[in-house]
This record gives sequence, structure tokens and C-alpha cells, in this order.
Amino acid sequence: MNKTSEMEMVLGNLVSAVNMLQSCPEFASLIPEVRVNLAYALPQAKTPEEVAAVEGRITAVRGFPYASGTPTFGASDHLARRILEVRKYDSTVNAAINFKYDKVMIEVAKGYCSEQGLLFGWIGRTREPAEVTEHDRSSMPWKVKQLVESSGGVPKLFYEGEGWGKEPLFLALGNDAVEVAGIAIEIARRYQQRTLA
Amino acid sequence: MNKTSEMEMVLGNLVSAVNMLQSCPEFASLIPEVRVNLAYALPQAKTPEEVAAVEGRITAVRGFPYASGTPTFGASDHLARRILEVRKYDSTVNAAINFKYDKVMIEVAKGYCSEQGLLFGWIGRTREPAEVTEHDRSSMPWKVKQLVESSGGVPKLFYEGEGWGKEPLFLALGNDAVEVAGIAIEIARRYQQRTLA
Amino acid sequence: MNKTSEMEMVLGNLVSAVNMLQSCPEFASLIPEVRVNLAYALPQAKTPEEVAAVEGRITAVRGFPYASGTPTFGASDHLARRILEVRKYDSTVNAAINFKYDKVMIEVAKGYCSEQGLLFGWIGRTREPAEVTEHDRSSMPWKVKQLVESSGGVPKLFYEGEGWGKEPLFLALGNDAVEVAGIAIEIARRYQQRTLA
Amino acid sequence: MNKTSEMEMVLGNLVSAVNMLQSCPEFASLIPEVRVNLAYALPQAKTPEEVAAVEGRITAVRGFPYASGTPTFGASDHLARRILEVRKYDSTVNAAINFKYDKVMIEVAKGYCSEQGLLFGWIGRTREPAEVTEHDRSSMPWKVKQLVESSGGVPKLFYEGEGWGKEPLFLALGNDAVEVAGIAIEIARRYQQRTLA
Repeated sequence: MNKTSEMEMVLGNLVSAVNMLQSCPEFASLIPEVRVNLAYALPQAKTPEEVAAVEGRITAVRGFPYASGTPTFGASDHLARRILEVRKYDSTVNAAINFKYDKVMIEVAKGYCSEQGLLFGWIGRTREPAEVTEHDRSSMPWKVKQLVESSGGVPKLFYEGEGWGKEPLFLALGNDAVEVAGIAIEIARRYQQRTLA
Repeated sequence: MNKTSEMEMVLGNLVSAVNMLQSCPEFASLIPEVRVNLAYALPQAKTPEEVAAVEGRITAVRGFPYASGTPTFGASDHLARRILEVRKYDSTVNAAINFKYDKVMIEVAKGYCSEQGLLFGWIGRTREPAEVTEHDRSSMPWKVKQLVESSGGVPKLFYEGEGWGKEPLFLALGNDAVEVAGIAIEIARRYQQRTLA
Repeated sequence: MNKTSEMEMVLGNLVSAVNMLQSCPEFASLIPEVRVNLAYALPQAKTPEEVAAVEGRITAVRGFPYASGTPTFGASDHLARRILEVRKYDSTVNAAINFKYDKVMIEVAKGYCSEQGLLFGWIGRTREPAEVTEHDRSSMPWKVKQLVESSGGVPKLFYEGEGWGKEPLFLALGNDAVEVAGIAIEIARRYQQRTLA
Repeated sequence: MNKTSEMEMVLGNLVSAVNMLQSCPEFASLIPEVRVNLAYALPQAKTPEEVAAVEGRITAVRGFPYASGTPTFGASDHLARRILEVRKYDSTVNAAINFKYDKVMIEVAKGYCSEQGLLFGWIGRTREPAEVTEHDRSSMPWKVKQLVESSGGVPKLFYEGEGWGKEPLFLALGNDAVEVAGIAIEIARRYQQRTLA
């Protein structure tokens, strides 16, 4: 497959994932302060320019998730670098999504992982060395290394605890954007059942 | 390639085409009253449900083309049926876009086709038999047949003249959505040069 | 009230009306080919630049009406000129909305008007003199005059039948945008009950 | 003026402010991780339900600020509570906007305030008592009190430094949404000149 076809496969999979999320009102309550993004990297991606994501991120409007722009290459920096770093440990990971963190979410995500036989993980930013924190870009390798080591592999679902100036967030990783959107939707439904109960 | 991959290729190609249009301010002046749609059919598509298009169509906001929704299967009826009918004559046609018709546009489109060695065509609705006009859905086979016969093949660019209750429109056909968006953008730039001159 | 305050009142009333429409899924099935616009004129408006409307018009996305842009002055031409012309006969009219025309709609709208004691009207474009049709801008005074004379006043609800190259449309007129949106929503609910029955 | 008219004035002023921001590409580089919101409180507002803001917040798409939804009452929690609390000290404040914080911004904002003879302020969250931080909702009165005391009044422009799990942010306060959008646009233009220089 040539590069243009690969890029279109990535964009098309992202659109399918966006359409799934936009049809799921339960996911609207998982939008964090920084909003949601959903990113998908080309097979040989080396930089965020080779990773596609939703321009303007996904927010909530009238009770439904809403993608502010279309999927585009280069539309994510942080989430894109996350995927590129994780791939050094697990080359099957191409896509990621972030969503809200809270205590109920930890229980829901842990329950889901244990039921499905998936790895669950977390990154505690309190343990981050000062020289890493000061330079935002250098913290990604450290955080991903800590995540993989403490989880015994690359987890499907994990959270990154709050940091100084940083909102805590949950993340799901997967082979493509439709897979991670599917996980996020399943988590959103379980979360709603828990919080409504 | 399985059907899911084919669907993603179609959606991804549509997103690329939408991103091209949204970055082209010249195209904003080609938005007709009925707005623009851009449709792309799966290889074996038999019904509009197997043709993807932009949900809510493409309009103009603050001087730029703006896709109101994301590409989705089943989001077009008229343009989708047009592609399915044209394919009976030319199986390489998978995608179509519509845009504004006026007299300057006829000259611009004819000039482009003659320069590029492409077929140009038109459908005159005044010649449409009364029994066809009365039943909107039965008019598509008649119109496409007339188009192909009068043009000596399936044209890349053609217009459909005004009808009773119907806005006249220009259409471009092509192998994929990126190709037809490229034609539309080229036409838009030439149109602007003509009208500004 | 100074002009800035008057402009903000108009924009704010339009936003309220847009929010009402966007929360009404029944109205999604009333979106015509040319999409919906909703316009509201300043008290002393003389030109479309002094009439506010929804930039990019209102379309349907995922089953709900969707305003592609925000309310802005100068965002409508045709509907704005309609309001300015109607005001020559009835100075209480400041706002208008257009929506889909079909035979069921005529019955629904007539029923609503007769129940509420409101004038109902229509413009038959077949009666339009040829010299008027040829020059689009000169047809508005003729059409509004015909409407007022045939209806015995300025009607709240009326349709303009199909013309050569023109989609037939329904229109509602009122004192402000919230009033016309309210009428359109009531009609949409009755229309849905009729078509589902 | 009755409550409906007051609500429409607030919504209309917000739309004018949103249109100003959406036309200012320089402001796109001031969008923080949590996105921008712009809120405007009714004169007698006691709760966030009586404060209007942009649903889904304002993000950046294709180089321009983009409001994901329309202005609506109840669309902001944090920024709405901020306005309600500030008003206890200065009843002329009805509107607020938040934007990106960084070191260049501090210089730009200080320079603007000193030139215009306006109060500049800041909230250092490191000084926040532990019992306040733990309960997010109780921290607003403490933060606003600290701001007013340390600034010698209610400042037009101030920042809130980073906190544990909280992105640092700049805020502007004013009499209405158009005023705060105007300040934000002026700051954005000066910021761009500084960072491009």
C-alpha cells in the first residue's frame, strides 16, 4: 500500500471512530477540561505530522460528543508523541484516546480490564524527577517507561495522575481508532451505570 | 480488501477531499442554494446506503467552505443515485461533487475541459418528458442516458439546466473524492479570476 | 435604545430561536434542499446588511437541526429582502423563517392557521409575468404584492410554489425570531404526527 | 427591561463577541489546553444557570478561533462562579474570558495594563491553604479574595498560576462580553508581535 492509501485508511478509520463517539451520549460525561482527542499514527510515523487527530478536539454540545474539526495529520502534539513513545515497547499500538479521570473511573476501568483479561496501568507524576518535569517534552519517555515497567507491559487502559499544572487523565491504547473509541464507549456506559446507581 | 477496509478507504478519501475544499476560499463562491455535497461510492454499491457523503452538506462560513458534519454512509440520496446510474455507463466513476451553475461557469468549465482534453456535457431539463418529471426518482436514468448520449460518453464536467422547481447545478465526476475536489478547486480559481477581471 | 443595543437584541433573539430549533428533532425533517434560514431585521433596516441571519444556514446533522455558523448581520440576501418588502404592508413583521414545502405541509399549515385564527397565503409563480421572472431581484416586490392582495393581508404562514429553477418553500413571518421559530416547531410536530400516522 | 429582554441582550452581546474572536486569527494561538470560554452574567444572577457562555467552549480550527456551540445559559460552571464571586467586590463586572498563560503573556498583559492605567493581578495557588484545595468549589471565594487584596481592587487582567492538577490561565474581566473579547484580541495581537519578533 502506498503512503497516500495508508493516510486515507488512517483518516477513514478516525472518521468511523468519531461517528461512533458522536452517537454516544454517555461519552459526553467523560469529556475532561482539556477536551478529548483521538489520534492514529501511520505505520512508520516518526513525528506528530505523521499522526492524524481531530482538529480542535472533541467537546460536548447539547448532550452529545462533538468533533470541532475534521481528522487531519498534525492536529495533535501530546497524544501523538505518546503513541510514538509507546510503540518503542509495543509496535501493535497505533491509536490512543484520552478522557476524564476520577475515582469512579479507576474502579470502572480496573473492573473492565480484569473482566477482559487486559493490562491496567497508571503513571504517578509525584514520582517524576524534577529535571524531567521542568522540560515538558523530555517527560514523555520517562512517563512511558515508568508506565510499562510498573504495569508489566503496555496496558490497554491507564491513567496519568495529576501533576503540577496538569489535569489527570485516562487513556486507552489500541491497534486503531475504532478499537480505542469502542473501549471508551464501553467504559462510558459502565461509568454512567455506576454514577446513576 | 474486506468491506470494512473499503469503507474506511472511502471515508478517508472523503476527509482528504473535504480538508482540501475547506482550505480553498475561492470555492466558497461556488456554493449553490442547495449547498454542495461530495459523494463517494463503495466499489460494489447498489444503494445510497453504500455511498458516503458529507452529512448536512458543505456551506460557506466566514468566507471559507465549511462541512456541517462528517462523512457518513447514507448521507446523500440524489448525488448517490447519480453515481450509481452513471456507473452503468462508466465503471471507473465512483465520486461526484455538485456546485453553482451560471453562464460564466459554463465558459470556465468548457475552457478547462477543452484544455485538458476532457469531455464536457449538459442535461437540458426542458427536453425531459412529462411522465419522467412527475416522478422525481424515475428521472435519474433518463437524465444520465441523455447526458451520455449527447456528450459521446460520460463527461468529467457537466451541468444540469434549471427545471421546474429545480435549481440548475454543475457536477464533476471522477474516480475518487480527492479527484473531484481537485477539479472543483481548479474551476473555482479560474472562475474567480474571470469574475474579478 | 442605541443602535448597538438594538443589534444585540436582534442577535440574542436569533440565538434563542436557534437554540429552540436545534433542540427540536422534529424540525430536522422540515429542512428543504436550500436549507433553512432565519432572519431578523433591525427596526429601521433598509438593506440586507441591517438584517441578521444564520451564517451558512441551518441544516440537519445526526437527526437534529444544526446551525452551521453564528447569527450575523448581512448573512442573508433573499430572506432579508423578503422581510424588508413585507414591512411595506405590515410594519410589525421583523422576522422570517423558511422550510420545506409539500402537500402534507399545506394541510398542516392551513389547519394550524384556521385553528389559531391566522391568515394563510400562497404565491403562485406560474402567474408571475415573464419580465419579472427574468430579473430575480425585481420579482420580490411583485411576489409580496401578489401575496398580500390574494391573502387579504400579510399572512403568518404561506408558501411560494415552485418556479423555473426555484424550489417551492414554506415561510412563516412574525414579530421576532423566537416567534417564527415557535411557529415552525409547532408545524414540525404536527407534520410529524401526520406523516407517522 | 423584563428578564427575557435581559437574557437576549446578554446572548446577543456574546454572539457579537464570538464573531469578533472568530475573525481574529491571532487569538488562535492563545487557546489553552482547557480551551477558551467567554461568559456573561445577567444583572441579578445568583447561579451559573443565570450566566450565559459558549457551549462546548472555543477551540482553534484551521488557524481561526472556533466556537463549538452557540451561547447558552448554564454552559459554564467555573467561569460563571468566578464572575459571581468577583461581583461581590465590583458590581460592574458581568463578563469574563480565559486564555493561555505563559511568561511572554505576563509581560504583554502587564505592559498593556500599565499603558492603559488598568489594574493587573495574579493568584498564586501555592499559597492556597490545603483545606481549600481539597474541595474545588470552596476555593473560588478564597482565590478571588486573595486576588482583590493583593491587587488593590478587582483587576481587568490577571492570571491564576498553576496548581496541583490545574493548568495556569489568564483571565480578563469586564462590563460585557464585547469588552472582554476586545481586551483578549488586543492582547493576542501584542503577543503575536512579541513572539514573532
